[in-house]
Amino acid sequence: MKAQKIDAYLIPSGDPHQSEYVANHWKSRRWISGFSGSAGLVIVTQQDAGLWTDSRYFIQAKEQLAGSEIVLQKQKIPHAPEHIEWLVSQLPSGSTVACDGNVLSISQIKSLESAFAKKNIKINATTDLISQIWENRPPMPSNQVFEHDLSYAGVSRVDKINQVRKKMIADYHLISTLDDIAWLLNLRSNDVNCNPVTIAFVIIGKESTLLFIDAQKVNAELAAILKRDKIELHPYDGVTSFLKNLPSDHRIQIHMGSTNTRLYQAIAPEQIVNGDNITMRLKAIKNETEKKHIHTAMIKDGIALTKLYLWLDTKLDEQTVSEVELAKQLANFRLQQGDYHGESFGAIVGYKGNGAIVHYSAAPETCAQIEKDGILLLDSGGQYFCGTTDITRTITLGTPTTEQKRNFTLVLKGHIAIATLQFPHGTVGVQMDAFARHHLWQHGLNYGHGTGHGVGFFLNVHEGPQGIASSITTSRGSTVFEAGMFTSNEPGFYKTGEYGIRIENLVFTEVAGETEYGQFLKFETVTLFPIDLNLVEVSLLNEGEKTWLNDYHQKVFEKLSPHLEADEVEWMRNQCRKI
Amino acid sequence: MKAQKIDAYLIPSGDPHQSEYVANHWKSRRWISGFSGSAGLVIVTQQDAGLWTDSRYFIQAKEQLAGSEIVLQKQKIPHAPEHIEWLVSQLPSGSTVACDGNVLSISQIKSLESAFAKKNIKINATTDLISQIWENRPPMPSNQVFEHDLSYAGVSRVDKINQVRKKMIADYHLISTLDDIAWLLNLRSNDVNCNPVTIAFVIIGKESTLLFIDAQKVNAELAAILKRDKIELHPYDGVTSFLKNLPSDHRIQIHMGSTNTRLYQAIAPEQIVNGDNITMRLKAIKNETEKKHIHTAMIKDGIALTKLYLWLDTKLDEQTVSEVELAKQLANFRLQQGDYHGESFGAIVGYKGNGAIVHYSAAPETCAQIEKDGILLLDSGGQYFCGTTDITRTITLGTPTTEQKRNFTLVLKGHIAIATLQFPHGTVGVQMDAFARHHLWQHGLNYGHGTGHGVGFFLNVHEGPQGIASSITTSRGSTVFEAGMFTSNEPGFYKTGEYGIRIENLVFTEVAGETEYGQFLKFETVTLFPIDLNLVEVSLLNEGEKTWLNDYHQKVFEKLSPHLEADEVEWMRNQCRKI
Repeated sequence: MKAQKIDAYLIPSGDPHQSEYVANHWKSRRWISGFSGSAGLVIVTQQDAGLWTDSRYFIQAKEQLAGSEIVLQKQKIPHAPEHIEWLVSQLPSGSTVACDGNVLSISQIKSLESAFAKKNIKINATTDLISQIWENRPPMPSNQVFEHDLSYAGVSRVDKINQVRKKMIADYHLISTLDDIAWLLNLRSNDVNCNPVTIAFVIIGKESTLLFIDAQKVNAELAAILKRDKIELHPYDGVTSFLKNLPSDHRIQIHMGSTNTRLYQAIAPEQIVNGDNITMRLKAIKNETEKKHIHTAMIKDGIALTKLYLWLDTKLDEQTVSEVELAKQLANFRLQQGDYHGESFGAIVGYKGNGAIVHYSAAPETCAQIEKDGILLLDSGGQYFCGTTDITRTITLGTPTTEQKRNFTLVLKGHIAIATLQFPHGTVGVQMDAFARHHLWQHGLNYGHGTGHGVGFFLNVHEGPQGIASSITTSRGSTVFEAGMFTSNEPGFYKTGEYGIRIENLVFTEVAGETEYGQFLKFETVTLFPIDLNLVEVSLLNEGEKTWLNDYHQKVFEKLSPHLEADEVEWMRNQCRKI
Repeated sequence: MKAQKIDAYLIPSGDPHQSEYVANHWKSRRWISGFSGSAGLVIVTQQDAGLWTDSRYFIQAKEQLAGSEIVLQKQKIPHAPEHIEWLVSQLPSGSTVACDGNVLSISQIKSLESAFAKKNIKINATTDLISQIWENRPPMPSNQVFEHDLSYAGVSRVDKINQVRKKMIADYHLISTLDDIAWLLNLRSNDVNCNPVTIAFVIIGKESTLLFIDAQKVNAELAAILKRDKIELHPYDGVTSFLKNLPSDHRIQIHMGSTNTRLYQAIAPEQIVNGDNITMRLKAIKNETEKKHIHTAMIKDGIALTKLYLWLDTKLDEQTVSEVELAKQLANFRLQQGDYHGESFGAIVGYKGNGAIVHYSAAPETCAQIEKDGILLLDSGGQYFCGTTDITRTITLGTPTTEQKRNFTLVLKGHIAIATLQFPHGTVGVQMDAFARHHLWQHGLNYGHGTGHGVGFFLNVHEGPQGIASSITTSRGSTVFEAGMFTSNEPGFYKTGEYGIRIENLVFTEVAGETEYGQFLKFETVTLFPIDLNLVEVSLLNEGEKTWLNDYHQKVFEKLSPHLEADEVEWMRNQCRKI
């Protein structure tokens, strides 16, 4: 830093593809700090080093930073760029802040620039210090790529590329985001934990499509198929020189939020057309084939969970079960359903007080032992070739208190409010979010996470652009819901040190009808598993809510029972009893 | 335009103060086009002339433009700058668009600049063509200024100025908005119809405050009082030269959304500090004195409306009553209550189908005759020295249909949902708006206006920044509610050609309590007048909604009946009967 006259160096958690979860190769913030949480950023200056993370990780960060010189900088709002203010306040005018533009989007750099302008702080986004000092860095992932069969995907890669071409407003369109590339080309791999994607870039031209990828990951057979579909293979690193050498009369459409700064800077400014990431919006609308398969995935998931909870019941008669063991058993039960690729995220098994830690991750050495008592929160999901699942259920293992039942029922009322909402086309998530919360609000309660996120199809469990959130400045809060979108509905409530409650189902957006006041949409709940009636205070439900719950349980029973063993059917019949 | 090489000239509806309602002197769009609606913009090119307005005004604009060469350009979204796209599509690269920067904010000019950049269209914001050609232009308003007594205002102008100084981030703060100036200095006038403001600019310095105003409007006594309070009087036009001659080591805080471009361009760029309009947020939080007076204004308004509806009942036994006559009578009844200054906006009296025209304005020649039949919507407000009111009631004059009762009850359920909402601090209007709509949505119905707007204190009936709206990009939708804010709650429903329904009360935001999940706020309804029970389908209300309605009617009766004549008390007792 001294040699290069850098006053502060940023080390974020990102990769060159703006991924939420990154491969180990890019975990430089973790490497330099030891802090392994999913959200965090390190800044090194000549005097200090600090880690910015939010309240979910304060305890973990304190432990993992112990003994280092890195100071924990407590963020008020998760993912908010609060470090920018700190830099502006700490650095003298004329300072230089550097970072590796490879792992920061151009939007992120522009935010820095605009904040720094008032104090004449310069930003140098072309300095990768980490590569020079990180010994034994994990290599780039190199897993084989495989096709996601057309019988699952529903639309061929050729047709998808043509859909994109119709919406392109330039000669080329650069796609950096890994789930978009996987969706576009009907390809999958294992390059990122739980996300079945491959590390690559794509540039769609008018005639052909360029796939920048490590050639070793594509076998000869697949390479031939791609060639047939006019998809040219190029080395992963070749994307930069391709952009640099773009013929001067050609322009390229890029999305500033998902394009890294190194690529952006490789393109001559007059050749850049700022626009959407076209694939993101196309991918969000599930086609009929995908929808059909997702219903199958839901049955598989419901069966696996049935087997898990029955297994837990039986085990607990004899012994305790650790949180980690429960997650392992669940993955096994999912695997038994076939078509299974792995977890869609690390399962969150939160027993009693652990359930109140929203991003809790049980570790074998320290995790809790589940007994026949208290509340158990289980948030998990599977990657099936026929779809991605994400479900949370909260059950009582003993006799719940009046307060626990009331709070569970308030969360349930919020869940039902979203599940039954009918709304005009044009409605965005931030307009819906409070329906999930207002029963809690009336009692002075709340929860500190969003109510819903988009979900991929055998792809990332968190998928943009839509969602149900209280923030008006994020795509999750501000995206218009369209028919065919696939979203989670997951209100919760957390009592620190005591228990966590969350009820999560996945929903399709469907057309409800058309009136002179416009097109109206509604949600169809597709997740299939009973909600624990032992935690429901029936007197707090109105008639509409009771009807929803009874209808839902009837559907769960009808869809799952044909696939269950006799004892499982009896268990399920009781779980789905009418209230 | 030819002489000055202008390819397109913009004529908006604004004044130099970004007012919603403007004095006749600035109605240049109306003058050039003949179109008198409240929202619209004219563009003149060498080939064409067009008027942009939204669906509320299509019929009116078509009539008023008939015989002119001005083409009606139908806007999809009210107030959206859809003309910008048109300019970009129509004008060749290198064109020049001109306008009078005096009547456009710097934010508006920046939007134009950013849209025009991609096509290399230049913007010239220093050309006032209108003044050169408008003969017999109405003069600038010149009404006398008067004090709003401290016994009403609650806080002296000296204290208010000091509150602003505490929040200033520069040596000076420019205030252009007329209601902010009126609030800050506890001054009122009649320069704009229904808005008790005076045309002026204010610059607050560290020691003194400069008021740029036509000196004839301030009498000697008031001038002496202002001098005592260290408020210097300067000519209205002097503001530009003051800004031009600002000492070079002094900086001035301006708000880009409410500062016109001529003033902005008068300041050296390095002396500008972009920031809030500080007064706007201070003014939005009503103080205890203001709140006490507002309760009095509500009693006055309730009495006036009682007398009006009883008068109407009696009259209709003998004859019909025109919409215009009803509005006149109401103004009379308000005047009789004392402390009255005038209407807070032109009353909307919408009988039957006219009620479905959201911004309907009855004209003496064409307005409807009210009979003992059908539905009557009445939206009106008064300017009392003790507060500004705004109330809408919808009554049936005959026997309502089942559908009318259902739709009225759906609107009422939405009104009650807002009135009873408890929400954490941090909540913005866009999160609340759908609570007013979702009962309608479930039936495929909706309404095309916002649910609530801020209200001034003996000031503008529409006052920023907060509101309850479905748009995430406006201050109305995105402002955090604070205790002390004063806002309307006015869901509606409109059946074209048949009837309009709106139920509007004003509410204070109050603290509900503090829990470990944060501070919670709630609304207190302060408007006092019964809701027509003949339009309520009781079977559609749940217990909580019935309780709210009964409690509200009990409060209305208790607060108003001591001020009513015997026959009025009996009428009121029936209106407020328990359901």
